[in-house]
Amino acid sequence: MAHPQSKRLLWRNTTVFDGLDQQPEPMAVLVEQGQIAGLWPESQFDPALAAGAEEAGHGGVMTPGLVDCHTHLVYAGDRAAEFEQRLEGVSYEAIARAGGGILSTVRATRAASEAQLISASLPRLDALLADGVTTVEIKSGYGLTLDDELKMLRVARRLATLRPVRVTTTLLGAHALPAEYADDADGYIDLVCAQIIPAASAQGLADAVDVFCEGIGFSTAQCERVFQAAISHGLAIKAHAEQLSNLGGSALAARYGALSVDHIEYLDESGVQALADAGTIAVLLPGAFHVLRETRLPPIDLLRRYGVPMAVASDANPGTSPLCMPTLMANLACTLFRLTPREALAGMTAHAARALGRPELGRIAIGATADLCLWDIQHPAELAYAVQAGRLRQRVFNGVISHAR
Amino acid sequence: MAHPQSKRLLWRNTTVFDGLDQQPEPMAVLVEQGQIAGLWPESQFDPALAAGAEEAGHGGVMTPGLVDCHTHLVYAGDRAAEFEQRLEGVSYEAIARAGGGILSTVRATRAASEAQLISASLPRLDALLADGVTTVEIKSGYGLTLDDELKMLRVARRLATLRPVRVTTTLLGAHALPAEYADDADGYIDLVCAQIIPAASAQGLADAVDVFCEGIGFSTAQCERVFQAAISHGLAIKAHAEQLSNLGGSALAARYGALSVDHIEYLDESGVQALADAGTIAVLLPGAFHVLRETRLPPIDLLRRYGVPMAVASDANPGTSPLCMPTLMANLACTLFRLTPREALAGMTAHAARALGRPELGRIAIGATADLCLWDIQHPAELAYAVQAGRLRQRVFNGVISHAR
Ligand SMILES: [Zn+2]
Ligand SMILES: [Zn+2]
Repeated sequence: MAHPQSKRLLWRNTTVFDGLDQQPEPMAVLVEQGQIAGLWPESQFDPALAAGAEEAGHGGVMTPGLVDCHTHLVYAGDRAAEFEQRLEGVSYEAIARAGGGILSTVRATRAASEAQLISASLPRLDALLADGVTTVEIKSGYGLTLDDELKMLRVARRLATLRPVRVTTTLLGAHALPAEYADDADGYIDLVCAQIIPAASAQGLADAVDVFCEGIGFSTAQCERVFQAAISHGLAIKAHAEQLSNLGGSALAARYGALSVDHIEYLDESGVQALADAGTIAVLLPGAFHVLRETRLPPIDLLRRYGVPMAVASDANPGTSPLCMPTLMANLACTLFRLTPREALAGMTAHAARALGRPELGRIAIGATADLCLWDIQHPAELAYAVQAGRLRQRVFNGVISHAR
Repeated sequence: MAHPQSKRLLWRNTTVFDGLDQQPEPMAVLVEQGQIAGLWPESQFDPALAAGAEEAGHGGVMTPGLVDCHTHLVYAGDRAAEFEQRLEGVSYEAIARAGGGILSTVRATRAASEAQLISASLPRLDALLADGVTTVEIKSGYGLTLDDELKMLRVARRLATLRPVRVTTTLLGAHALPAEYADDADGYIDLVCAQIIPAASAQGLADAVDVFCEGIGFSTAQCERVFQAAISHGLAIKAHAEQLSNLGGSALAARYGALSVDHIEYLDESGVQALADAGTIAVLLPGAFHVLRETRLPPIDLLRRYGVPMAVASDANPGTSPLCMPTLMANLACTLFRLTPREALAGMTAHAARALGRPELGRIAIGATADLCLWDIQHPAELAYAVQAGRLRQRVFNGVISHAR
């Protein structure tokens, strides 16, 4: 969505969380041409500095628009029936035998048209937007064929034309092994590397490539092949790694210059060191931790000690995190992972933007993209403390107020 | 809010969760005079049965309006700063020495005018309504003086005049010991029994009386005095009991015919038996369990075995559950307490209504009050499975559509 080039907007006397920290005093914020053009402590603000600007808001707490840097938002079907069956005592095995689990989402997604995928995904996207998201990463990974992976990525790109939101796309061909390759994981990786990655790159459908590096996913050797193919096609890389065990996927991804490694409950100190050395972001996914009732915490203290930036994302997906609410993620990150509210908010703004290779986003600073939220609260920490819909007063996308109530 | 006496509304082909169970086939639902007037399997519906009724909706999932049967929604201030301090490593002791904890909410609530309490509470109430609540119980307990407890109850009653919602009020004078009675808990209980309960009853401000029966709250002997005073003034009773230890508060409350006992993580089998014998509802509060990172689960299997109805509520409060989202509570009840989605939904509808002594609410049945929600989902279980704002298509209060999108 293009922004009207002409409109200058001014917010007065607002408490600013700038993506990394709370500004020590209330601020005046000027937006023009889709960027932050002025930023002054309210006490030093001279109205002449913003002559002709329209006063767009007053008071409240302003944050960068939230960046949800890890989602599987596009899919068909849902897994509520499975959720219910498990709670009613049906075993995982019986559910899998009956065709449940991730492959049921693959079947439904393959069967869906692009229009059906769009209408299935829009309510989830709208829920994110209503809670302050202005940038969302969306992964493929429920197609697992050339055509179906590209279809998912096209749908993700289309969503950005239907709503005022920035979408970055990630090809996650190496998400699960499709039934037709049940005994030939290497053959499936051949398909990903030789066909899906080149096509997604050629068609401009993917901003990055991701893998699921895990005993129940793909080996480090297989993931390394995917990374090499991605890099040779000019795509950034990411990894689901160290979620259920420590295979060394994070260090491998870091060696290949990954933007981020995600989940990382089982990451050890040498892995943290590798992230620090490579400048790779650690993406924490407390929603999956909650849904799966995991007990192994990501190495938060080590990440702090090594100065590895931590992002926080929804991991919105039908199996392990059907949770489309970024402020709930902030609450879970603090409650379950013991992040401070400041860390959780930085993790959903500045650090999440870096996890997407988009450092111009997720900041309130001169020259940053004017994606902003104005919240009806007193202190930024309230976003992590309380879970309460309806606190978003304004959402500003690319310098334009796209939501107001 | 009175309902227009004349309008007849008809929903067609909707999947009905009736408060206890899902109806086996899609239904047609007729509402008139604020009640459910007709309920037919869609396949047997004859339009002549509802001649002249306006078609109000089609498809989706219909549930009773949600009943949040345990909240502390009215208070001033918030405890986000404390939440942040704890996560930044400040000890509970240091926070308490600095005046934090529940008594900081008491100070702020005592200092607030009724108008200030209303404007502080309305956004929380609106968040509940936007997620489907049609009846909410609101407790006092942050006043802890005669005047301030009555002020809180008046505010709770006023909220029901400002929004289309049913409010039931509970006097929770025995919530915490105010500083001025620091060494005289029995003296404070005298005040509750001799002055606050009689005044609240005389002024029609309380529907029930509650206590916090716990080592850090009030003893069973003190709670028993409160129950006796409540009953002698014609008020129903409830108890916060067995949250952090097993004092026998639940069995005591049951002996006095309590509507509900709430929290009950430490309830034992004899306590469950007492609830079953008395017809007392077990109210589960997974939000506080989540925020406090408790590990001791309420005795769900025993409650099932003894046939004790389980309700689920938000416990919305500034310290241990600043969570104003009933569908999140359904998710937490399933994820943390292993309730089935059906149990969680019954816990927020039919059983919650019984926990308030209002069996005409929380049901979709002929003659029940027409408080209804129509959701944009396929299966009732989705309400517990996914956390996603914006799925409520219509909220019907007392036979009138009060929210639609
Ligand atoms: Zn993921
Ligand atoms: Zn309570």
